[in-house]
Amino acid sequence: MPRIKPPLPPSTPDEIEQQLYEALQRADIEALMAVWSDDDEIVCVHPGGPRMVGAAAIRASFEALFANGAIDVRPEKVRRLQALNCAVHSVQERVNVPTEQGPKAAWVMATNVYVKSSRGWALAAHHASPGSPREAQDAAEAGSTLH
Amino acid sequence: MPRIKPPLPPSTPDEIEQQLYEALQRADIEALMAVWSDDDEIVCVHPGGPRMVGAAAIRASFEALFANGAIDVRPEKVRRLQALNCAVHSVQERVNVPTEQGPKAAWVMATNVYVKSSRGWALAAHHASPGSPREAQDAAEAGSTLH
Repeated sequence: MPRIKPPLPPSTPDEIEQQLYEALQRADIEALMAVWSDDDEIVCVHPGGPRMVGAAAIRASFEALFANGAIDVRPEKVRRLQALNCAVHSVQERVNVPTEQGPKAAWVMATNVYVKSSRGWALAAHHASPGSPREAQDAAEAGSTLH
Repeated sequence: MPRIKPPLPPSTPDEIEQQLYEALQRADIEALMAVWSDDDEIVCVHPGGPRMVGAAAIRASFEALFANGAIDVRPEKVRRLQALNCAVHSVQERVNVPTEQGPKAAWVMATNVYVKSSRGWALAAHHASPGSPREAQDAAEAGSTLH
């Protein structure tokens, strides 16, 4: 009788990405850290900020962000590059920021890199930087896909 | 006699990265475009800029940059995440910018994603954003490796 291996956890890069943004929306640090790869060299760059390498630094940076509350962020206009065991998602993040005049939308450009291991898909890198006004976010794209 | 396949082009992510930065230093648009993957969804984000998706948009963006001359950029403090057929390099780019007072150093944080295909390794994504002063570029790193 052939040995039956346990199934891989059901996951795709899109599912991991959904978990990432839902964790940000709930300020759920455990759910957030759960999407990351086990690799020691995972990297995170916040808008305008330094880079964090490794789980401890990344966790600390999100704990600091969550001290100010949940992050009302929605991924939009996702562009996907799919390779074997690797996926690169370019995301325009719409962040609703509370102001005295009411919530205002700010745009962040993010690159999320997902890698597949025996555990399934996980986040290897998240690089976010301040974006320009929505209309200027994509320059000279051919055949953009609406999401 | 077994059929002998042609060897893969000799390349590693580090070699492709070296070609990338040398092409920037020489303002060599052909050498620059040669490092990119053939995938339609390759993505490039310049510091503070919109995102470019696809070879045509990426090429146009670098041609516009090179119209101002070569870019005196050096990759430093590279952190590498290596997965099967995928590598993520986090790079602190030191850019020497000419000013009236002489050249000044500016820092750019970049994430370069390399994927491996039958062609060998190639650049799939380049996300660059303005960095902070050198000392503040890396926050709370454990066991950083000097490069």
